[in-house]
Amino acid sequence: VKKVLGILGGMGPLAGADFLAKLTAATPASCDQEHIPVILYSVPQIPDRTAAILRGGASPLPAMLEGVRALKDAGAILIAIPCNTAHYWYDELASQGELPILHIADAVIRALDRQAVGNTAIGLMGTRGTLAAGFYQQRFAKLGLNCIENLPEEHDTLVAAAIAEVKANRLDSAVKLASAAAQKLFDRGATRVVLGCTELPLAIDLAEPELRARCLDATQTLATACVDWWSARGQAI
Amino acid sequence: VKKVLGILGGMGPLAGADFLAKLTAATPASCDQEHIPVILYSVPQIPDRTAAILRGGASPLPAMLEGVRALKDAGAILIAIPCNTAHYWYDELASQGELPILHIADAVIRALDRQAVGNTAIGLMGTRGTLAAGFYQQRFAKLGLNCIENLPEEHDTLVAAAIAEVKANRLDSAVKLASAAAQKLFDRGATRVVLGCTELPLAIDLAEPELRARCLDATQTLATACVDWWSARGQAI
Repeated sequence: VKKVLGILGGMGPLAGADFLAKLTAATPASCDQEHIPVILYSVPQIPDRTAAILRGGASPLPAMLEGVRALKDAGAILIAIPCNTAHYWYDELASQGELPILHIADAVIRALDRQAVGNTAIGLMGTRGTLAAGFYQQRFAKLGLNCIENLPEEHDTLVAAAIAEVKANRLDSAVKLASAAAQKLFDRGATRVVLGCTELPLAIDLAEPELRARCLDATQTLATACVDWWSARGQAI
Repeated sequence: VKKVLGILGGMGPLAGADFLAKLTAATPASCDQEHIPVILYSVPQIPDRTAAILRGGASPLPAMLEGVRALKDAGAILIAIPCNTAHYWYDELASQGELPILHIADAVIRALDRQAVGNTAIGLMGTRGTLAAGFYQQRFAKLGLNCIENLPEEHDTLVAAAIAEVKANRLDSAVKLASAAAQKLFDRGATRVVLGCTELPLAIDLAEPELRARCLDATQTLATACVDWWSARGQAI
């Protein structure tokens, strides 16, 4: 069995494909054989993460653990999860899945740190579940960064709406909603807006270049973190 | 174990991600849970297909069969292979892999048939291995379609060069080469050009819309064939 990077995808499916494309593009390779070996588990029949966190919905943890175990059985030595909200269950997934998992918010923090954003305000967009989970805000606070979020009504009509449109394959509509939500945060003083839901970069990648350049794509930072991990240790394992 | 669509990818890695994105976009779904469950095996450490067909290089069949078996063990009930050249080994993969495999050239033929191209000339771009294998030309002949290919020198300097650039993550350069190669076939009377290598749509997707509209993307047709198969039988299995 080949040692591979296991991707726990499907949350949503297009975000998993986007992550794989960004991982591939971020890899310094000159031919097929130099790319990182990957298995992507994209079984989207997983209970909704935000509903579980906020409204007592069915837990997605058993289905996610099934995915991690399938990836482990197939040769995974490292797990990446291109879904921010899923990281609410990070500790259980890492301990019960018995594999190292790169935390998407750690990857974002590293990118912010590299960009030397200083003591500024950072905008944060994500699902209600991610915002309630607090793993981004806690990390921002440690770096002395002020966090700006959308107001509840903006969240429902712009952020959550954009995410739902991506999951339903309506990117044209999603880009308008997501751009408007990001602009609200820039208007309130954010120097960067973290796209802390893997559906959001799929919308913002199609937005005006100027707005896009001021957003930080969590999917992209996770892809870069995987390439760094693999380059440093993957070959030797 | 969930019943899933198994994707034998990695040939190349970006083509596998492209296939997954096109599969997702082609699926009539309104939320995550309505998308097709998929496992993508993208272990690109597979001997070069064209070198094996033309120059007696190491056979990729054992590595490809290892992938099919890993997918089967993980729950695959159908296999799709987003690599045209790999279909040279279609019969062995289907019989020894013991799973149904949708043939990418059958998917292309169905799309050409739907577009009612009549008794015209069809351009064909692909690797030297795919062109030598003949599975496209045989199917075109059955439909009474004349097949136009690039001249050997054009193939080396434009088609093969474009494919190599995609595998090395240089899409800007690839789009120029691939567009020039397709234009040669249109100049010689092709009404459509089949992009019969999964790296080529990654280049042509960035080309002028007018040229792009006259090309037929084999990756896209395979994605549509998977959605059709799954809609018709997947839910009941």
